[in-house]
Amino acid sequence: MLKAPEHQVAGHEARHGKLGPLVDDSGRFYKPFQSNERGSAEVEFYTSLSSNTSIPDHIRGFFPAFYGTELVEASDGSGLQPHLVLQDLNVGRVHPSIMDIKIGTRTWYPQAPDRYFEKCLKKDRETSTLHLGFRLSGLKFYESEDSGYWKPDRKSVMKLSAEDVTSVLKKFVSTKTFDFNTVPDCSLASVVFGGSTGILSQLRELKAWFEDQTIFHFYSCSLLLMYDKEKTLNGNNPVAEVKMIDFAHVLQGRGVIDHNFLGGLCSLIKSIDDILKYS
Amino acid sequence: MLKAPEHQVAGHEARHGKLGPLVDDSGRFYKPFQSNERGSAEVEFYTSLSSNTSIPDHIRGFFPAFYGTELVEASDGSGLQPHLVLQDLNVGRVHPSIMDIKIGTRTWYPQAPDRYFEKCLKKDRETSTLHLGFRLSGLKFYESEDSGYWKPDRKSVMKLSAEDVTSVLKKFVSTKTFDFNTVPDCSLASVVFGGSTGILSQLRELKAWFEDQTIFHFYSCSLLLMYDKEKTLNGNNPVAEVKMIDFAHVLQGRGVIDHNFLGGLCSLIKSIDDILKYS
Repeated sequence: MLKAPEHQVAGHEARHGKLGPLVDDSGRFYKPFQSNERGSAEVEFYTSLSSNTSIPDHIRGFFPAFYGTELVEASDGSGLQPHLVLQDLNVGRVHPSIMDIKIGTRTWYPQAPDRYFEKCLKKDRETSTLHLGFRLSGLKFYESEDSGYWKPDRKSVMKLSAEDVTSVLKKFVSTKTFDFNTVPDCSLASVVFGGSTGILSQLRELKAWFEDQTIFHFYSCSLLLMYDKEKTLNGNNPVAEVKMIDFAHVLQGRGVIDHNFLGGLCSLIKSIDDILKYS
Repeated sequence: MLKAPEHQVAGHEARHGKLGPLVDDSGRFYKPFQSNERGSAEVEFYTSLSSNTSIPDHIRGFFPAFYGTELVEASDGSGLQPHLVLQDLNVGRVHPSIMDIKIGTRTWYPQAPDRYFEKCLKKDRETSTLHLGFRLSGLKFYESEDSGYWKPDRKSVMKLSAEDVTSVLKKFVSTKTFDFNTVPDCSLASVVFGGSTGILSQLRELKAWFEDQTIFHFYSCSLLLMYDKEKTLNGNNPVAEVKMIDFAHVLQGRGVIDHNFLGGLCSLIKSIDDILKYS
């Protein structure tokens, strides 16, 4: 039985007759092909990633496992439709906190068609992308059994200023995150961001690869940052993880590093490092 | 007595009645104020750089020394005009090779006026800026006493593809650089790019600062890469140097790193590192 995932933070959701991703009970995530050629482009990326032997295993771990494609009953009632079958990244997580962060100074690629280019450029200029080198695409933060989750709507997340985004990064590792105005306490920063298995350390591992890899250029790609909030509040291991998602616009690097992604990643690392140092 | 500098590689030259920079015999470089507010913006940057005590000395060395402003007779005969008085970066160099490399995935800054924004964006898309994260603005390579210098005109330098730019980087450290079609031998790569005082090592020092500094965002700023070609051919120290120049569009960082410059810088480092490794 396929159902809508419990912890989706960005993109269209498979509810109320809309098309969106589905999950099963065995840990698989079914992502419907995106329109135009984006669906097949994403399949092409995952296939090329799987077959590329030059990618080290510890880097491969940053990507969801890929199990091919499958025709499954789409969530919008349109019948059997092609889906990418991926690893469900939230299997086993109870009350996680999750951020979807779109990385890069620009989300459009060279040779993008005019309309797409203009749409992306406008969004980049209106969001924190231009100033920060990344923007929030969505978030869902667990608070407590009483209040449940904080999940602001897409529009209010998109229009956050650079300062607001930094504040949300702090709320991600705070015990109270009720709304945009709460003052974050950052009390979980050291266990979630810090340490040898924390998020900062994972981001730095990814950075080292991006300083060298010239295989892929990732446009409009996101980093998912997540951890088990309730476990962390109870003093257990946060199981903090960084994953890369959304590969409809991955281009060949042709011998050049992905300076656009790398710049944004360095900016995110600096923001998180500052939270660790000064909070 | 002021005269046109011998080794200018980019920008307007003070010859044939045109407005351009001048040098004197005491090692000073007189740069006429650029039009609009760019002249005063550049003064403001140098002043702020001089007074900022948080900039480490080894980083300060990447910038030309600044001696204030002065009204001097302009090279275009327009009488006394304001000039920035800077360090002449080529004092003492005999037969140098020099590249002017404009760094960044984009040369326009947030809040740039529409016309300037459109002009920059168009140029970024038409040059190697988009794919490489940097582009060549000018170059002048010494070859030999017989053939003198190779100094292609601005237009042919600007329209170089990413592959062509990589090839020019190789020619910079080759003994023969006569034209765009010469196959570079890269025989000087290890002494010019490599080693503890070579260009790569200097670029990495600069990179470490850019990973942390949130004071300035540098748009449309260049790196000058230069060394004494003749000395190097004779087996002497190349006196390789990296300098940052052109600060008419420097913005405040407001707590965020300059991910646009850093991305381009990392891409240049990777290109040079590859030349060292594989040639």
